[in-house]
Amino acid sequence: MKLVSFHTPDAPGARVGALVESARALPGAGASVVDLSLAYAAWRRDVEHDPFADDLARIRIPADMKRFLEGGGHSMRAARHALRHVHALAQSPDNTVLARSGILRPLAAVRLLAPLQRPGKIIAIGANYSGHIQEGRDAGVLRELPQYPVAFLKMPSAVIGPDEAITRSRHTEELDYEIELSMVIGQRCRDLSADNWREAVAGFTIVNDISMRDLIVVEKPTGVVFQGKNLDTTCPLGPCIVTCDELADPDALNIALRVNGETRQHDNTRQMIFKCGEILAYWSSRLTLEPGDIVTTGTTSGVAGFNRRFPERLLKHGDVIEAEIEGIGILRNTVVDER
Amino acid sequence: MKLVSFHTPDAPGARVGALVESARALPGAGASVVDLSLAYAAWRRDVEHDPFADDLARIRIPADMKRFLEGGGHSMRAARHALRHVHALAQSPDNTVLARSGILRPLAAVRLLAPLQRPGKIIAIGANYSGHIQEGRDAGVLRELPQYPVAFLKMPSAVIGPDEAITRSRHTEELDYEIELSMVIGQRCRDLSADNWREAVAGFTIVNDISMRDLIVVEKPTGVVFQGKNLDTTCPLGPCIVTCDELADPDALNIALRVNGETRQHDNTRQMIFKCGEILAYWSSRLTLEPGDIVTTGTTSGVAGFNRRFPERLLKHGDVIEAEIEGIGILRNTVVDER
Repeated sequence: MKLVSFHTPDAPGARVGALVESARALPGAGASVVDLSLAYAAWRRDVEHDPFADDLARIRIPADMKRFLEGGGHSMRAARHALRHVHALAQSPDNTVLARSGILRPLAAVRLLAPLQRPGKIIAIGANYSGHIQEGRDAGVLRELPQYPVAFLKMPSAVIGPDEAITRSRHTEELDYEIELSMVIGQRCRDLSADNWREAVAGFTIVNDISMRDLIVVEKPTGVVFQGKNLDTTCPLGPCIVTCDELADPDALNIALRVNGETRQHDNTRQMIFKCGEILAYWSSRLTLEPGDIVTTGTTSGVAGFNRRFPERLLKHGDVIEAEIEGIGILRNTVVDER
Repeated sequence: MKLVSFHTPDAPGARVGALVESARALPGAGASVVDLSLAYAAWRRDVEHDPFADDLARIRIPADMKRFLEGGGHSMRAARHALRHVHALAQSPDNTVLARSGILRPLAAVRLLAPLQRPGKIIAIGANYSGHIQEGRDAGVLRELPQYPVAFLKMPSAVIGPDEAITRSRHTEELDYEIELSMVIGQRCRDLSADNWREAVAGFTIVNDISMRDLIVVEKPTGVVFQGKNLDTTCPLGPCIVTCDELADPDALNIALRVNGETRQHDNTRQMIFKCGEILAYWSSRLTLEPGDIVTTGTTSGVAGFNRRFPERLLKHGDVIEAEIEGIGILRNTVVDER
């Protein structure tokens, strides 16, 4: 299942949905978004003959994705019932009910939001691809091979969704990109093992870890890095959360980042030094992960701004960035200057 | 007003309340907690003759403090109406209604929680007292006088409340304390000036920025500091949020931290290098602050673990820490070893 948060023109606030891309799955529908709460209510009403269908659907499939994830297996099972019911309705003689009821909408008729608009915490993994470490070394930036999955925090309020603008702050001249496969936590947990880590993961998404290289240089002597990774709009996230069952092996996915159509980063998550399971085992041995937390996995080589080595690659007003990961999709954002 | 989150034995979940400490304010009550939602419902019912009093009270005074703060002036005015009504009821002939209805409870009969259990983000200010910078220098830890209010992030899930245990993780031998006056943001804002910053602040609280000195040393070569400041339970917060109108000058408050009754840190916020307004002006020029965010103001001298200078001061199992700030109160926590 590809979970999304979306917004429709006719109602306020976000909704939780499922992205259905294949026209074969829903004949005649094309790329569409299923409103999981409405679909679940329909299933409870049509199949279970439940007089409280709508009330239960609001509880089981809340409008906020973090609350949905807190529902754990209960909410996830409800979402699967809902989706199966939509497929059944699509096969029925009167399949116009899906459109009339707002259960199914063309993707073009809704606005996708960040699937999680305010994660609980965002643990961003640093140097985790040898290529990225090598380019750091070449640039004279200290980068030893890490002994553990080095991490820092990105602030939840930096999150933006697909097609939202990345604002280049007036405080930076060196705006950079970093595509990262990211895990969405679905269960409160401590001390996961590298074997059972998948139980804690609701799914996978893409983070573009927008970085301000000049601000990192300013902060380095203070011993902490915060604003170099944490201005507004510096955490594009999306376009969807792909549940674990649909991603056979997250440690073997092609990833690519393009700026204005030109490929800047291109690799496979096979090259990660610490695999998804090792990252979660390490960090969950230190701290509690909670539903709605994000853990990234680091980026690969090809970034712009290690010590101004590729100043022509730094992001500027109007640049269109596409971060693509196999099996998840494309996270597209455009850069605009502040003011 | 002293806003608290609290828990009662007879109902699940947190409630938003007001701490009433003076026995003079509520004759016969002693230190008590007003359930603001119940009190607001009583006011709407008794004075406004509102048939939907309970429903409105649940919306205006939500059970979650972050949601309460998001209510802005609307929720704050409702809380003041509620509190005034409690004082009026206390003067009435049948003032037992306060206790019978659960509107007023003895402080000893409730459990105070962190006033904000999951802040949106926690911006922790680093070197901001010359005394703390000097002890860093003496210890050979690089500490230049900061050019701006240096900051890092603490994760929301590290927050614990009054009297909750600080767990010394099995991964650290050097657990340390840092008392910090902290601002609670009440309004979404960018680009505050040093003059109008108070409009964005709902109130003030205490953060004990628990730090793992040995982990900071390990992380330093990687260029980021995360786990040295961010294991579970390393952000004691509370005991209450004192609204701005009750704190004449946050930049002139006595602060003190004691371990097992022995004073370790003692200073006045007058000694802060960057004042509250300067800190908010700086960071809001970079990024958006939101209701429920926390911004600390740094700690003063007297910490234990700069380069093992005072190993005998490091926190150990059973230590009782009291962080006290004039006009706010005492945040008390006990250290327990993991496992």
